[in-house]
Amino acid sequence: MIKVCLLGAGNVATHLYKAFKSAQDVHIVQWYNRDLKKISTYKNDVTIIDDISKLSEADIYIIAVSDDAISTLSTTLPFENRLVAHTSGSVNIHDLDKKNRRGVFYPLQTFSKEVPIDFNEIPICLEALDKNDLDILTHLAEAIGSTWYKISTEQRQTLHVAAVFVNNFTNQLYRIAHEISDAKNINFEILKPLISETAKKIQEVSPYMAQTGPAKRNDKKTIKKHLKLLEKENHKAIYELLTESIKKTHGVSSPPRTRKEKSK
Amino acid sequence: MIKVCLLGAGNVATHLYKAFKSAQDVHIVQWYNRDLKKISTYKNDVTIIDDISKLSEADIYIIAVSDDAISTLSTTLPFENRLVAHTSGSVNIHDLDKKNRRGVFYPLQTFSKEVPIDFNEIPICLEALDKNDLDILTHLAEAIGSTWYKISTEQRQTLHVAAVFVNNFTNQLYRIAHEISDAKNINFEILKPLISETAKKIQEVSPYMAQTGPAKRNDKKTIKKHLKLLEKENHKAIYELLTESIKKTHGVSSPPRTRKEKSK
Ligand SMILES: NC(=O)c1ccc[n+]([C@@H]2O[C@H](COP(=O)([O-])OP(=O)(O)OC[C@H]3O[C@@H](n4cnc5c(N)ncnc54)[C@H](OP(=O)(O)O)[C@@H]3O)[C@@H](O)[C@H]2O)c1
Ligand SMILES: NC(=O)c1ccc[n+]([C@@H]2O[C@H](COP(=O)([O-])OP(=O)(O)OC[C@H]3O[C@@H](n4cnc5c(N)ncnc54)[C@H](OP(=O)(O)O)[C@@H]3O)[C@@H](O)[C@H]2O)c1
Repeated sequence: MIKVCLLGAGNVATHLYKAFKSAQDVHIVQWYNRDLKKISTYKNDVTIIDDISKLSEADIYIIAVSDDAISTLSTTLPFENRLVAHTSGSVNIHDLDKKNRRGVFYPLQTFSKEVPIDFNEIPICLEALDKNDLDILTHLAEAIGSTWYKISTEQRQTLHVAAVFVNNFTNQLYRIAHEISDAKNINFEILKPLISETAKKIQEVSPYMAQTGPAKRNDKKTIKKHLKLLEKENHKAIYELLTESIKKTHGVSSPPRTRKEKSK
Repeated sequence: MIKVCLLGAGNVATHLYKAFKSAQDVHIVQWYNRDLKKISTYKNDVTIIDDISKLSEADIYIIAVSDDAISTLSTTLPFENRLVAHTSGSVNIHDLDKKNRRGVFYPLQTFSKEVPIDFNEIPICLEALDKNDLDILTHLAEAIGSTWYKISTEQRQTLHVAAVFVNNFTNQLYRIAHEISDAKNINFEILKPLISETAKKIQEVSPYMAQTGPAKRNDKKTIKKHLKLLEKENHKAIYELLTESIKKTHGVSSPPRTRKEKSK
C-alpha cells in the first residue's frame, strides 16, 4: 500500500485524486489545497486540509499545482527527507526544495476537469534522483494502471514542447478548419471522421509514411488554388509554412524562382 | 439495384470497388483502367476492361482517376446523356464533358490502398446539376452505408483546403514531434495517447473550447523556454506562427514591444 498526500485541486490533482481513490494499492492520507472550498465536495471520502503545517506522514507527496507555485510550495513543506514529486512537464526536478527527496510524476496527457480520463491510457514520465524513489514512483504509476517511462528533465522538457505541437497546435489547425468551413456555411461535422482517421493512422504507421496531399506531391496547381481560396492572411501564412515544411521533410524542392516572381 | 461502371484503379477506386462489391444494392457492371495489370487480380469477380470504347450501359459512371486526368477522360467516354461523376475534392463539376449528365461523389477521407476503410464512417460530398441525378448519388452513398452531404463546388473546394489543414498539416505536426523526440532519444510511443485524445476531444467539444496550453494562457516564460529548446529554424518558425494564431483566436494580445526589442 502506497500512502500518498496530494497537493493542489486543479485539473491534474482532481483526476489523480479519482485514480488514487479507486486504486487498490493506494491510500490517500490527505488532500491539501490552499482553498478548501475547491475540494470540500470530497470531505466525506478523504481528509481535506488547507493548512500545510498539518501534513501527515506519507510515502510520497504529489505537488500538482501551477508550475510557478511548485518551487515555493515545496519550501513550505513542514518536513525533511521525504519523497516529494511534482507533475509538471517543464519544471526542473531541482526546482523542488532540496530539503526533501525529489521526483517527477508527469502524466503526458491533456486534462480538463469535466472530461473523464482513463489512466490506463496515460503514459507517465518519471524522474528521481535516487533508485529507491524511482521504485516508489513506478509502483504508484502501476497502481493506477499507467504505462511509465523513465525520462530525464531535459527529455521531459523536450516532450513538453513536442506535446504542444501534437496537442495545442494540432487543435489550432482544427480551429482554422472550423473557421474556413464556417465562412462557407459548411457543417464542421463533415471533417470529424478525417480528423479521427489522421490520428488513428499514425498509431500504426510513422507520420513520415502517413503523409499524403498536394505538398508532398508538390502539386503546384492545387497549392496555388488553395492559397487563392484562403481569405485570411494568417491562414495563408500557416498554409505556406507547413507546405514548405512537408516539402522539406519529403525532399521535394521548390524550383528556383524566376526573376519575375522574385521581384513581386 | 444501382448499376455502376468504375473507372480508375488507384486508392479511391480500389476502396470503392470493395465497398460496391459488398453492397447489396449495387452491381458493378465493369471496372475500367488504362492499365489492366492493376486490376487483374479481380478478374474472376468483376468484368475488367482497358478499352474505354467497350463501356456498357450503367446508371452511373464513377471516374476515380487523378485530378488532372478527369476532364480528358470524360471527353473520351463513348456515350452521351448518362450520369458521370468524379471523386475529386478540387475539380469543378463543369470540368466533366458536358455531353453527359454530371455529378460529384467525393469521399472526404484519406485513403491508402493497404489501410482498410469503413465507408460507414466516411462522409460523401455530393453534387449534381439535376435533382434526379442527385437522387442516384444519394442512393449510391446510402448503399455503401455512408453519410452524405449536398455540397456545392465552391463548398467542396473549401472543404478540400480544410482537409489539408486537419490531415496533411496535422500529420506534419506529428512528424515534427517525432523529429524533436528522436533528437533526444525519446520514444515517440509516449506521444501517441495524447495524439488520440486531441482528436477525440473535438468530436464532442469545439476546437475553440478544447484549446489549452502556453499560447492560450499567454505564458511567456514557457513559450520562451520552448523556443530556446527548439533547434531547427523551421520548427521555431512554426511554433511562433501557431502560437500567434492561438493568441489571436483567444484574444490574448501580445503587449506592444519595447523599442529595444523592435530594433533587434
Ligand atoms: N492540465 C494539464 O493538461 C496538465 C497535464 C500534465 C501536467 N500538468 C501539470 O500539472 C500541474 C497542475 O496543472 P493543472 O492543469 O492541474 O493546474 P490548474 O487546473 O490551473 O490548477 C492549479 C492548482 O494550483 C493551485 N495553486 C496555484 N498557485 C498556488 C500557490 N501559490 N500555492 C498553492 N497552490 C497554488 C491552485 O489552487 P486554487 O485551487 O486555490 O486556485 C490549483 O489547485 C502543473 O504543473 C501542470 O504543468 C498539467
Ligand atoms: N487518395 C485520397 O485520399 C483521396 C480522397 C478523396 C478523393 N480523392 C480523389 O480521387 C481521385 C483518385 O485519387 P487516388 O488517390 O485514387 O489516385 P491514385 O491512387 O494516384 O490513382 C490514380 C488513378 O488514375 C489513373 N490515371 C492517371 N492518369 C490517367 C489518365 N491520363 N488516363 C486514365 N487513367 C489515369 C491511374 O491509372 P494507372 O493505374 O494506369 O496509373 C490510377 O488508376 C482523385 O480525383 C483524387 O483527388 C483522393
